[in-house]
Amino acid sequence: DFHVDWDLAAAEKGGYPWFMLKEIEEQPQAVADTLRGRLGDQGEILLDEVRLTDQDLRDVDKIFIVACGTAYHAGLVAKYAIEHWTRIPCEVELASEFRYRDPVLDRSTLVVAISQSGETMDTLMALRHAKDQKARVLAICNTNGSTIPRESDAVLYTHGGPEIAVASTKAFLTQVAACFLVGLHLAQVRGVKFADEVGAIVDQLQAMPGLIKRVLSTMDGVRELGRSLASQSTFIFLGRHVGYPIALEGALKLKELAYVHAEGFAAGELKHGPIALISEGTPVVAVVPSPAGRGFLHDKVVSNIQEVRARGAMTIVIAEEGDEAVVPYADHLIRVPRTPTLLAPLVTTVPLQVLAASIADARGHDVDQPRNLAKSVTVE
Amino acid sequence: DFHVDWDLAAAEKGGYPWFMLKEIEEQPQAVADTLRGRLGDQGEILLDEVRLTDQDLRDVDKIFIVACGTAYHAGLVAKYAIEHWTRIPCEVELASEFRYRDPVLDRSTLVVAISQSGETMDTLMALRHAKDQKARVLAICNTNGSTIPRESDAVLYTHGGPEIAVASTKAFLTQVAACFLVGLHLAQVRGVKFADEVGAIVDQLQAMPGLIKRVLSTMDGVRELGRSLASQSTFIFLGRHVGYPIALEGALKLKELAYVHAEGFAAGELKHGPIALISEGTPVVAVVPSPAGRGFLHDKVVSNIQEVRARGAMTIVIAEEGDEAVVPYADHLIRVPRTPTLLAPLVTTVPLQVLAASIADARGHDVDQPRNLAKSVTVE
Repeated sequence: DFHVDWDLAAAEKGGYPWFMLKEIEEQPQAVADTLRGRLGDQGEILLDEVRLTDQDLRDVDKIFIVACGTAYHAGLVAKYAIEHWTRIPCEVELASEFRYRDPVLDRSTLVVAISQSGETMDTLMALRHAKDQKARVLAICNTNGSTIPRESDAVLYTHGGPEIAVASTKAFLTQVAACFLVGLHLAQVRGVKFADEVGAIVDQLQAMPGLIKRVLSTMDGVRELGRSLASQSTFIFLGRHVGYPIALEGALKLKELAYVHAEGFAAGELKHGPIALISEGTPVVAVVPSPAGRGFLHDKVVSNIQEVRARGAMTIVIAEEGDEAVVPYADHLIRVPRTPTLLAPLVTTVPLQVLAASIADARGHDVDQPRNLAKSVTVE
Repeated sequence: DFHVDWDLAAAEKGGYPWFMLKEIEEQPQAVADTLRGRLGDQGEILLDEVRLTDQDLRDVDKIFIVACGTAYHAGLVAKYAIEHWTRIPCEVELASEFRYRDPVLDRSTLVVAISQSGETMDTLMALRHAKDQKARVLAICNTNGSTIPRESDAVLYTHGGPEIAVASTKAFLTQVAACFLVGLHLAQVRGVKFADEVGAIVDQLQAMPGLIKRVLSTMDGVRELGRSLASQSTFIFLGRHVGYPIALEGALKLKELAYVHAEGFAAGELKHGPIALISEGTPVVAVVPSPAGRGFLHDKVVSNIQEVRARGAMTIVIAEEGDEAVVPYADHLIRVPRTPTLLAPLVTTVPLQVLAASIADARGHDVDQPRNLAKSVTVE
């Protein structure tokens, strides 16, 4: 009966026109749920459910993260944090490419497989390949009891709740948060960070749901901006450091939902080719790092924004509150709260999700079910 | 005096309307020059000029390749070959990102810096960062006595001759060939390949200039195809394994020269998002691996071609002679000679260069001097 189904769907959407919008709003709660019960009173990380022993984790001398699509972008963010906190070399690989390229793996390699559904076939095949080579596999998944966690040595569930929209939003933020927990846990177990150092980062992590909520409360302008950009046929996204995967993720959301060509670049790569694409009015979205993290990193991105603007680009700048250096070069300025450098993706991603959904909606597309795509890709 | 300058330029172009076309045609000779004097009679690799001792090379337990733009794509190809031949983990990084992310480096890390000009500022800064961390640096450059080779521990010149066009062509192929030499040299010095095994690959390498020449003799259809595609505003490029960086390179050439949105994807990633972009008539260029290398790799790319075609894409397929499986799904079929799996980029790249130049020329752009770009990027 259609009537009942429609009512049901509407009720499930909790008043939102699209599941995606509901899931974007659920992100503060979802990230809090990922962290819940895993942060001890003494600032320590508690991952008792991870069935790898401390000795197993001390033996790790190389980490591979394998994933697809949005989960791959979460892995790219994780790499920065894991290497920074643990000094263990960490390589991130598209699952579909991983097993074709003869990766160098052994018993002291930790493979982290990230998949919302736990059924992503490419990731599952990569995991099996890793296990054949005797590597240890840790899954980061959202769906209890799914195949990838079942076949892994250990699992960290993201506890993000069901995600219905095909384009991943809260799954992404919870995957990033879960990766941070893995990185801190490794640093703690291996003794490369003091307890109070881990504790300080734990405090910062615990503040993130509140900051994500603050971002969400300021999205009216972004929605309006999205509507005004609905007729644009091409977008460029720029970022450096942890902002680079966020540029990739922002571009992917727009490809998936709005069917417009959107490509993310490491901002430093622009002048090695892609800047030829910029013409009068090309929208360029730039994710600006905190000036409080590494000053020269921030300044380089600001100078990239000036470069594209000098060539006619319309600049859409995501920068933290108080960063005044970006103001003269931002045609549109989206503010996010100040966060520690590595945790910034948990807030900078949010406006990009809202922007993509708003553009897609204004173009008249089905935001929850983009053409050609399935929620869980269970074929290779 | 303009007249003299024009005559001079015309003479230097050797009858070609653009330097880029001349440089594309010079590729068989350029690759032969990269190999010359470096392949011994007994099939051994001779890199006497490389000032790293055999013991230095035996001590290497990790390789980073750092580069920008097209040279980065050469590095991506090299990774597959170096890991396959030597089993040393090899990571490829955008030079502009390398030093921001605290890479884990020490005395047993070999950093390979690739730059045509030897003056690329991002790559130079990455090199200096690597040297600060006590890593050993090997430069692959085309320009004698430039800064990057001068500051490196060792250098392998590509001997490709001057490249005038901003968009790199012969520099790319010679960089790939030079990387192959480095990989084989490492395998030989470390004893992980028998002399006759290295010799067999050396023979295959020596055959490549002839095969590149054969490809060049069959480009009329590609030029015509380029003209027919001149009004297209968006292109997608697909590849797996060593075909993936070639897809990235094909897309970059088109961005640089034709100013159209062109993005390269690992073919397996399509269904995780980008396939939403495909609509009726979208041109998709697919680089098909040899069925003689890894059968399932070939079959997967063929099935990706079917998938995009089922959604309306116009397929442009680069496949080796005798590969009949692709015929039913190729709207346009570009043949290249059969090559060993890892060496395929030396032939599959060529039609993509010709295609991009032809599209740009038909659109009325300056093929040699694309807007916004400089030949050698000497600022960060």
